[in-house]
Amino acid sequence: MNNSILKNIKSPDDIKKLSYDELDELASQIRYELISTVSKNGGHLASNLGVVELTIALHKCFYSPKDKFVFDVGHQIYTHKLLTGRYDRFSTIRTEGGLSGFPRPNESEHDVFFTGHSSTSISSAYGISVSEVIKGSKNYTVAVIGDGAFTGGLAYEAINNAGRNKDAKLIVVLNDNEMSISQNVGSISKYLTNIRTTRQYFRLKASLERTLNHIPLIGRKLSSGVYKLKTSIKNKLYNSNMFEDLGFRYMGPVDGHNIHKLTEVLEEAKNIDRPVLLHVHTKKGKGYELAEQNPSEFHGISKFDMDTGETVAKGPNFSDEFGKYLCELASKDARICAITAAMSLGTGLSEYAQNYSDRFFDVGIAEEHAVVFASGLSKGGMIPFFVVYSTFLQRCYDQLIHDAALQKQKMIIAVDRAGFVGEDGETHQGIFDVAFMNTISNFTIYAPSTYDEMRKDMYKAVYKDSNVIAIRYPRGSECEIPADFNPSYDVFDIYGEEDAEVSLVTYGRIFGNACKAYKILKEQGKNIRIVKINKIKPLDSSIVEVLKDSRAIYFFEEGIQNGGVGEKLALRLLEAGYSGEYKLTAVDYCFVEQGSVASTIAKNNLDTDSMIEIVGGAFGE
Amino acid sequence: MNNSILKNIKSPDDIKKLSYDELDELASQIRYELISTVSKNGGHLASNLGVVELTIALHKCFYSPKDKFVFDVGHQIYTHKLLTGRYDRFSTIRTEGGLSGFPRPNESEHDVFFTGHSSTSISSAYGISVSEVIKGSKNYTVAVIGDGAFTGGLAYEAINNAGRNKDAKLIVVLNDNEMSISQNVGSISKYLTNIRTTRQYFRLKASLERTLNHIPLIGRKLSSGVYKLKTSIKNKLYNSNMFEDLGFRYMGPVDGHNIHKLTEVLEEAKNIDRPVLLHVHTKKGKGYELAEQNPSEFHGISKFDMDTGETVAKGPNFSDEFGKYLCELASKDARICAITAAMSLGTGLSEYAQNYSDRFFDVGIAEEHAVVFASGLSKGGMIPFFVVYSTFLQRCYDQLIHDAALQKQKMIIAVDRAGFVGEDGETHQGIFDVAFMNTISNFTIYAPSTYDEMRKDMYKAVYKDSNVIAIRYPRGSECEIPADFNPSYDVFDIYGEEDAEVSLVTYGRIFGNACKAYKILKEQGKNIRIVKINKIKPLDSSIVEVLKDSRAIYFFEEGIQNGGVGEKLALRLLEAGYSGEYKLTAVDYCFVEQGSVASTIAKNNLDTDSMIEIVGGAFGE
Repeated sequence: MNNSILKNIKSPDDIKKLSYDELDELASQIRYELISTVSKNGGHLASNLGVVELTIALHKCFYSPKDKFVFDVGHQIYTHKLLTGRYDRFSTIRTEGGLSGFPRPNESEHDVFFTGHSSTSISSAYGISVSEVIKGSKNYTVAVIGDGAFTGGLAYEAINNAGRNKDAKLIVVLNDNEMSISQNVGSISKYLTNIRTTRQYFRLKASLERTLNHIPLIGRKLSSGVYKLKTSIKNKLYNSNMFEDLGFRYMGPVDGHNIHKLTEVLEEAKNIDRPVLLHVHTKKGKGYELAEQNPSEFHGISKFDMDTGETVAKGPNFSDEFGKYLCELASKDARICAITAAMSLGTGLSEYAQNYSDRFFDVGIAEEHAVVFASGLSKGGMIPFFVVYSTFLQRCYDQLIHDAALQKQKMIIAVDRAGFVGEDGETHQGIFDVAFMNTISNFTIYAPSTYDEMRKDMYKAVYKDSNVIAIRYPRGSECEIPADFNPSYDVFDIYGEEDAEVSLVTYGRIFGNACKAYKILKEQGKNIRIVKINKIKPLDSSIVEVLKDSRAIYFFEEGIQNGGVGEKLALRLLEAGYSGEYKLTAVDYCFVEQGSVASTIAKNNLDTDSMIEIVGGAFGE
Repeated sequence: MNNSILKNIKSPDDIKKLSYDELDELASQIRYELISTVSKNGGHLASNLGVVELTIALHKCFYSPKDKFVFDVGHQIYTHKLLTGRYDRFSTIRTEGGLSGFPRPNESEHDVFFTGHSSTSISSAYGISVSEVIKGSKNYTVAVIGDGAFTGGLAYEAINNAGRNKDAKLIVVLNDNEMSISQNVGSISKYLTNIRTTRQYFRLKASLERTLNHIPLIGRKLSSGVYKLKTSIKNKLYNSNMFEDLGFRYMGPVDGHNIHKLTEVLEEAKNIDRPVLLHVHTKKGKGYELAEQNPSEFHGISKFDMDTGETVAKGPNFSDEFGKYLCELASKDARICAITAAMSLGTGLSEYAQNYSDRFFDVGIAEEHAVVFASGLSKGGMIPFFVVYSTFLQRCYDQLIHDAALQKQKMIIAVDRAGFVGEDGETHQGIFDVAFMNTISNFTIYAPSTYDEMRKDMYKAVYKDSNVIAIRYPRGSECEIPADFNPSYDVFDIYGEEDAEVSLVTYGRIFGNACKAYKILKEQGKNIRIVKINKIKPLDSSIVEVLKDSRAIYFFEEGIQNGGVGEKLALRLLEAGYSGEYKLTAVDYCFVEQGSVASTIAKNNLDTDSMIEIVGGAFGE
């Protein structure tokens, strides 16, 4: 494939020298590079294909890194990486030690923030632009944010705050593709469609103004009342756009695939004496027919065949198994509701959404609202499941305290992607949830290792437990468990030598590693028992009872050490007079880089080999 | 004072029987009751005076508890309490064992949720209204929310989600008093003022429509182009309100002190086939001249003289001392910025705001935005202080992880009201911050006991430390420390018998109690040492070193046990082979009811007497 122009872009300066024809050709070359690389490495495709021209236009008009681009979420940053000296390394994207699939300031001076969570860009870009004002500099700050991210309240807080600052050289590019990961939801989405589909906003304003100017010419003298009315209409029209109401100058909508037009409007935006919201209309998946037709499938995708778009069939996984059993529960109980924050596909809710549409709620990228809304549903007698990735659950910590647990209203938090998530890296690891949920009373946490256990936990949550119940399960499939493991799935289970003096304690997916370690240690003549905790909060006193006479205890935890179960157990044991050896292996630095899940588990000493080595220490070698 | 009508209101049913004249008289009687009670007990006054008529009108038109009222934040609920069978107990408000100053479902079936944090009401009310739809009921749910709370993104997320649901019987009453606690900020506030001050919105719409209908009569044939234009104007006018853009039917603005008018509009709102936003204009402090003139002072107030409005002069306190020293730092360093989320008065920032207005940012009730905005300022080379109450810092847990610590950008979080806060109760206790900040890397936490120590920590944070630094200090004044305590204010300090076998470990304000306990124990011949931790995160290994040979360690912590410092120290000691006694006294159930700070400390065994009893245990009595 021809990459004659792309390969010569060593820095954004090189873009400025190109003609518009060459820029269009550059866009084609970038598109091919995106499709072929993502087909090999997996990654975010549809959103990146949508912003090729926009990213080129930004680099044509602005001077990064002096001017700063903040990409919201950051998964649409691939073209920016290709244009800022990272073409040579682009084939390493999303691999261990390679380029990140998100902005990473430690990778390039052109990446401004580490991002991965939604709706933050206007706030941080506004912060930069205010600091430029304080310093007396004239640099621009540009936030690029999707219409999906605009459903998050943080974006609104930032707009509200920035809208009155006439000095800030802030340009917000609203990349409107009518999608979050799935079809976008909520009123703001409908509103944007309205703006797009009526007619060119400025053209409307202009012609209305002309008409109003004509009124006095029609034949009768303009009375003072009519004059006032006319002024009111004018004011109303000029403030009739929500963004203008909130203090921004609105521009658009502009075709986001027309580089020439985009550069024109961006140049105009630079000269406006207040924050600008530039509404750009793009097509997710643009230029790759398969992705245009099915942008959700091609949002985040694993390796696929470029010609057919087919991915390797994935086997059973926790998300799908969760969705299936939730349908089963909902079919028998009309109180069951499900809430997602724009993640129905990833969390296995597609079938549920179709079959129980009156009890399915996609609230937009609005995790806080999801929890408080669930609290209302619960108050009204429903049993809501909020199904959410662990990393995004962090966003509603206060709501879990203030609007869920304190209310003692029953709701179930299904925590998907709990533990390491692999290629998405630092911003997406699901390693905080146990620690922060541990801090809250009226809260139960289950950590199933298998689908069967998860189903039992779901049933208990619906029909036995009260208050808030979290069920956390990892990305991917259940762990292998030995044939002779006959779990009670009560508070804890023991596997191995019931009366061994050395205990390996763990929970969740890495119980599978522990079982393998047990077997090998046994072959070496080292007898241990595994205490698998099923209900990790509240930590039942029977667990302390069964452990406190051990000679040595090794706790393995796929989550951060601070505030985790291993720390709490240490306190309980110490207070109970335990004086044997205690060693906790957990994630001790909370920003874990990208890599495969297996490799990340090994790096954090939670794999079978590490367990053998650490636990083997108790046998004095 | 005449309370002839008020005293006979035993339930909301009694209101429905009264004439409008009687309702006006009731409003007067309620106002007197509010002023006289708050002058004795302290509490929220100005906001409650503002919603007397509105609350009466709500109870006149709706049937609580079948219909449900959700008061946002909840501090404006006093009239609702007086009208729902709690007049007899109203004198106990905000006292230990008495009525709460906030909604409390365990107090009355008319209180729907425990609330205290802002901007949640539309979400939870929408949840209830959806459950009513699912159940096929026709009950109404009413959210009462101030314009201040509308600066919070959660309110927007809820509006966005609810706006498309035509079935929900949801009425949002926007109580617009142009204030948060202080003067309201941001674009939304300006926008609401625009709606109010131009002219009656519906009257404008009506007259515009008449004018447009007249156009064809003026003398020439209506061309198709003009017709289209006219239709566009009409559509534009009908959607020209932000709330209508987002799917709500907008009604108002209505005079919030006219019961008759309010009931008319509320009855109309009941019959609209979609969610309604009713814009009500009220005056904070209405009917009490002193509060009308100075509503911020009378927002939350301690006991005062009804005639003069004067409160007992308060002595020095952490907030004021913080504000003073921040001014000193800012005077010498142009990089210092301060951010508040609508709390400049409570956090001692008034003087700073006046003197350094270009580096002072009131972002509205938007804690999440505050942190991300700070991250942008920091990226631009500033040194931002985000000054916030501990309980509200919970709202930006994810931003502290994702937008602050991960970025390694320097910012300082000044955590005011850390620890017990007293009369505001469950929703406002500052007892989570240590635990949730403990989970995050690139994070330092100081817990000063005195003003002097706080100043030293502030200086270190600005000029020595990197990344995110939190300085937490309690509501009220510094603790008394003994004259012979000569602190280094390094990682930790020791007071008492340097080589005692029994250690009392603590930090922050209750170090004062520990010193008193030490003295009394010494008089009883019991020698202990106090290890006062100054930098509670990261927990320096020197602390484990100095403690690990103790015979007994007693840790006292004014914060929740789960994930706190005492738990982490237990793990470190156990891993270091410590085998003495260890007892942690901390808050073990995280919802602590209202009561004075002193009484709450005692109830949680963190007072001097409890310390003497618990630590005395080491000496075998």
